[in-house]
Amino acid sequence: MRCRTIIFGLFGLILGLSALLAGVAPALAQERFETLRGPDGHIELRVGTEGGSPVWSASWNGSPVIAPSRLGFILADQTKLERGLSVVAAARTSRDTRWEQPWGERRAMRDRHEELRVTFAEGGPDGRRFDVVFRLFADGLGFRYEFPDQPRLKELRIQEELTEFAVAEAGTAWWIPAGEWNRYEYLYRRTPIAEVGQAHTPITLKLDSGLHLALHEAALVDYSAMWLRRVEGTLFRASLSPSPTGPKVVRSAPFSTPWRTVLMAPDAPGLITAADITLHLNEPNALGDVSWVVPHTYVGIWWGMHLDRWTWAPGPRHGATNANVRRYIDFAAANGIRGVLVEGWNRGWEGQWWGGEAVFDFVTPYEDFDLEGLAAYAASKGVRLVGHHETGGDVAGYEAQLGPALDLYARLGVDSIKTGYVADAGQARFRLPDGTFVRGWHDSQLAARHHLLVVQEAARRRIAINPHEPIKDTGLRRTYPNWVSREGARGQEYNAWGSPTNPPEHEANLVFTRMLSGPMDFTPGIFALKPTQAGRQVNTTLAKQLALYVVIYSPIQMAADLVEHYEANPAPFRFIRDVPTDWEDTRPLAGEVGDYAVIARQDRNSADWYLGAITDESARTLEVRLDFLDPARRYEAQIYRDGPGAHFDTNPTVITIETVTVQAGQSLTLQLAAGGGTAIRFRALDRSTAR
Amino acid sequence: MRCRTIIFGLFGLILGLSALLAGVAPALAQERFETLRGPDGHIELRVGTEGGSPVWSASWNGSPVIAPSRLGFILADQTKLERGLSVVAAARTSRDTRWEQPWGERRAMRDRHEELRVTFAEGGPDGRRFDVVFRLFADGLGFRYEFPDQPRLKELRIQEELTEFAVAEAGTAWWIPAGEWNRYEYLYRRTPIAEVGQAHTPITLKLDSGLHLALHEAALVDYSAMWLRRVEGTLFRASLSPSPTGPKVVRSAPFSTPWRTVLMAPDAPGLITAADITLHLNEPNALGDVSWVVPHTYVGIWWGMHLDRWTWAPGPRHGATNANVRRYIDFAAANGIRGVLVEGWNRGWEGQWWGGEAVFDFVTPYEDFDLEGLAAYAASKGVRLVGHHETGGDVAGYEAQLGPALDLYARLGVDSIKTGYVADAGQARFRLPDGTFVRGWHDSQLAARHHLLVVQEAARRRIAINPHEPIKDTGLRRTYPNWVSREGARGQEYNAWGSPTNPPEHEANLVFTRMLSGPMDFTPGIFALKPTQAGRQVNTTLAKQLALYVVIYSPIQMAADLVEHYEANPAPFRFIRDVPTDWEDTRPLAGEVGDYAVIARQDRNSADWYLGAITDESARTLEVRLDFLDPARRYEAQIYRDGPGAHFDTNPTVITIETVTVQAGQSLTLQLAAGGGTAIRFRALDRSTAR
Repeated sequence: MRCRTIIFGLFGLILGLSALLAGVAPALAQERFETLRGPDGHIELRVGTEGGSPVWSASWNGSPVIAPSRLGFILADQTKLERGLSVVAAARTSRDTRWEQPWGERRAMRDRHEELRVTFAEGGPDGRRFDVVFRLFADGLGFRYEFPDQPRLKELRIQEELTEFAVAEAGTAWWIPAGEWNRYEYLYRRTPIAEVGQAHTPITLKLDSGLHLALHEAALVDYSAMWLRRVEGTLFRASLSPSPTGPKVVRSAPFSTPWRTVLMAPDAPGLITAADITLHLNEPNALGDVSWVVPHTYVGIWWGMHLDRWTWAPGPRHGATNANVRRYIDFAAANGIRGVLVEGWNRGWEGQWWGGEAVFDFVTPYEDFDLEGLAAYAASKGVRLVGHHETGGDVAGYEAQLGPALDLYARLGVDSIKTGYVADAGQARFRLPDGTFVRGWHDSQLAARHHLLVVQEAARRRIAINPHEPIKDTGLRRTYPNWVSREGARGQEYNAWGSPTNPPEHEANLVFTRMLSGPMDFTPGIFALKPTQAGRQVNTTLAKQLALYVVIYSPIQMAADLVEHYEANPAPFRFIRDVPTDWEDTRPLAGEVGDYAVIARQDRNSADWYLGAITDESARTLEVRLDFLDPARRYEAQIYRDGPGAHFDTNPTVITIETVTVQAGQSLTLQLAAGGGTAIRFRALDRSTAR
Repeated sequence: MRCRTIIFGLFGLILGLSALLAGVAPALAQERFETLRGPDGHIELRVGTEGGSPVWSASWNGSPVIAPSRLGFILADQTKLERGLSVVAAARTSRDTRWEQPWGERRAMRDRHEELRVTFAEGGPDGRRFDVVFRLFADGLGFRYEFPDQPRLKELRIQEELTEFAVAEAGTAWWIPAGEWNRYEYLYRRTPIAEVGQAHTPITLKLDSGLHLALHEAALVDYSAMWLRRVEGTLFRASLSPSPTGPKVVRSAPFSTPWRTVLMAPDAPGLITAADITLHLNEPNALGDVSWVVPHTYVGIWWGMHLDRWTWAPGPRHGATNANVRRYIDFAAANGIRGVLVEGWNRGWEGQWWGGEAVFDFVTPYEDFDLEGLAAYAASKGVRLVGHHETGGDVAGYEAQLGPALDLYARLGVDSIKTGYVADAGQARFRLPDGTFVRGWHDSQLAARHHLLVVQEAARRRIAINPHEPIKDTGLRRTYPNWVSREGARGQEYNAWGSPTNPPEHEANLVFTRMLSGPMDFTPGIFALKPTQAGRQVNTTLAKQLALYVVIYSPIQMAADLVEHYEANPAPFRFIRDVPTDWEDTRPLAGEVGDYAVIARQDRNSADWYLGAITDESARTLEVRLDFLDPARRYEAQIYRDGPGAHFDTNPTVITIETVTVQAGQSLTLQLAAGGGTAIRFRALDRSTAR
């Protein structure tokens, strides 16, 4: 038992030894702290040194949010960068920048922030130094380390980054584990913050005071992904994704680390808006004209394999046959759907295709698949094939064929490719510059380099990339707008064969966790909800499947079900035909993490608005004020809602479709069934008609 | 919110993909499980595969203790060793071996265990394979991996070990964090098991059912130390101490890993007895005659520096002066104390001596220190200097001078050396075979090699080693009995300058955590308890300082205070003069983790018994039955107990010393003050006198 509160002992020996050696140790420079207040005044930052170690802290409306937290690095070949440091300079900048997304959740972006650049340096003429640049936004902050060129830090061999986030309050966390056998495909855990283990970012926290936080990073370029390891209590520390070759990161100065971010909002919907910070902290578009990146909906040869009705490999149930693909092209053409994905068309799927070496041939189709002919057939109907490159985690094998593989698709008019990296975590296969092969993590520095290589090579050929089993999203779509989407969480396919399948709360978790990082190719739109495989089912109602097109943002959206299920259900399918994949604006209207979410988005190419509402296993009634609508217009609300007696488990497909005329200032009452949802198209009526 | 219990998803995708690919994946071999029951029948083990992955589990009296837990490895250059494995062989052995400790807590050791060797192999003629060898004892178990020589595993480049301990029940944990800036010198945290972060071993758990566990390892040789990272809930996974050079462990087959151990006992004292398992799992004495390893008590030039009264470096307050050391030699000779430690005698202490490069000169004394003359003076009085080698964590610098440094001491009759490695965790400096220097962990494979090198080189010169800021103890003293003690936890010095100092519960934590790994050079015996430095104090009573000589086992024990404090207090000092440092037997009589402990030990060189009892900040009355005494004898109990009004904070030095005659079958009532203790010598009376 304890007779007093034990002071958290991190600085104990530092102070102790300092006291002990006061006679001989070099005198510490004066401790200096800098403070900064964010644009709207909510957030205040304090940066400086304690006992010669850099620390930062932040508050929200005067209450501590991040208690003093350390900064620094352990290096493999030098003493660590963490002690004996002083603040030797500080510089402040205010910025208010407008920029536009070529596609996205909203067109007009406003990056308004206060910046504080703090220079830390060791003593003496040989002392090493680095800057930490903080940016405070209205609803969050970011900071990164910047290493200038200097004699004693030519090359940094970073063994570990010591960045801390000492969350100042108890609360609840939603998180997925990092360093486990899978990459990101876990159900979200909901635990007290003090019971988190090692988590991927974004990790979402609701403090007992009600403040919502998400910890993440931005602009993960040529660096290892940051995991967060809870040290004790509510203290988190960076834990960089491992390297099989030694230091977790090797970089030559000058260079900057990714930005470490903290989103802050009084409620869950506020986090969605705050997530723009991730984009603000990325570099502007580096590709120039990106009009060739076209948001769109696609269908494809995919769900049939997950249902075990088709196979990727050739055989009596091969999915990627000419006949099947023609049928899908015809369906797409008939329904205004731009893309047809085809998986399992190229050689390599015959045996165990994941985790291997040089299994896939990315340019040679199976004999029952006429790639050239089908591409031409699609083009003749105004449809494009969506390419597919499954690597089985063999990055080395993919890179060896990357040029020809992309060239082939480019020649055939395929301008969007889904890539795949199915392998256990830590089992991606990389080729080092010296020609040796290693097994490493999907989010290591090696992986970060690989994904950007693919995106850049694809951009040269005007191809968009949508990786599955990817590295996490850190907003690089701003710089490389052809990086359109990705997976990086448990998607729809778990409803076919997962143990367990995704529970009804899953998408209400995703909205406030995974989705804070960026678009996800979740592949919604399953109409035949049960059974999937072996007694499994999709744990949503049909209306919720439609609502996901609005709630789960992606500029490419799959209509994932077998096309015959759409043909048999034209009325609800109408929503999938109508719903856009590119937005003028986004308004998160309501929600609680893991419980429910209501989001409205405005079509970028019309005055229409769309609304999606989803709930977990609890039925719920939600009152939605239509304040987002243009007050100068009237709208025809085409409502797709859970029908009478709807329930995700017992009666998922009953749906009511109705139309009412509404306008701004009115409210709608949404009745969501257990595991249900509502999808609405607000069709803007002609102004003359409306008046 | 959740509508159902989410099954822990680790095996989700495995099953999912298996189902998905049933048509193409190679059929899994039959799952096979082997079971084994321990010697007394308490513990039952189950080992086999689930979905081709090796798992183990264990129960105590039929109740699960360790739920199915995975085994395996991530390799840097091959696919991981964890999937597609089958049990291809199993072999059982029963053993009952008696062996003797040359020195220790008890002389006679009995290693009675049931062994199960399970061979796991991948399919096909090229499949990789390894054995896992389990040994069940009456009160715990150990297991290790053994890699035979084989074509596809010539060299293992181990990126991570996947060994799991899925604790089957909630409960309380006592632990120190691993991967932090300090090595092991933390106050023990007491948290729910579900709030542990990443911990060093031994970690002690008290399950809600009352069962006590400690997780640790044995025979850490040429391998990286195992940390335990809580993944979620009460699931722990191995996390090997990092390497700055790539894989955490590189070994050529054939080789065996250290043993992973689980001690199990119905109560806290039972863990102390169970800890013998660690020694049973180490190899027998490899040094032959070790009569030159002599347990003893020592005084030294040490506490004065921590009080900031003396300095290590030369100057007006230099501690290691000829005059001071002569005074200590005289005192030792007058009081039957064998050793005099001298710190700060050799060049290198002038500047910042920790964390640097080639700071220390291990053979050149300061000018005010006549090493040869003082060694001769000591010898003339039957006393020996205790050597001191502080490295400041510069392993490379120490190894470069190791031969001459040991030779010097050997020539001067110094047969015991305290080494030191003060540097932040991750900052030890190693020289690689290619001549480059790296910074790494104090418990990495590099560090494990270093410590054994020092111990072996010292053994060649008949010198005993006592490292401070060491690698943790895993029972190697059995194989190398000159590895007599070590630090590896917060010792007495924190009471001089720590922030905070050690609280009264500290030693009651150590007994059931750190001490389960082996001897600790805690350096007890402070008589001038307050103040130490700057208002600090030792948070125990004087009687507790005496009790620590029995409770905290070490074959070398310091009488740590300034000798004038002993000269001024001859009555309590009598106990330090009397108490042996080598034991015939040890009986943990009572205790609760972090609250109190009562231990009796029998002198190895007489029929006397000694008893130590300590408590935390709560005063407590303990009834102790003297069943351990020889019923054929009577004993004079010389009792050193907290005096009237004693209290660690307000009145620590009041002590009552009294003598009573007792015999087996009687009881003694011990009254421990807050932060207090009792020390007793049971002097065996002559048989004729006694009858």
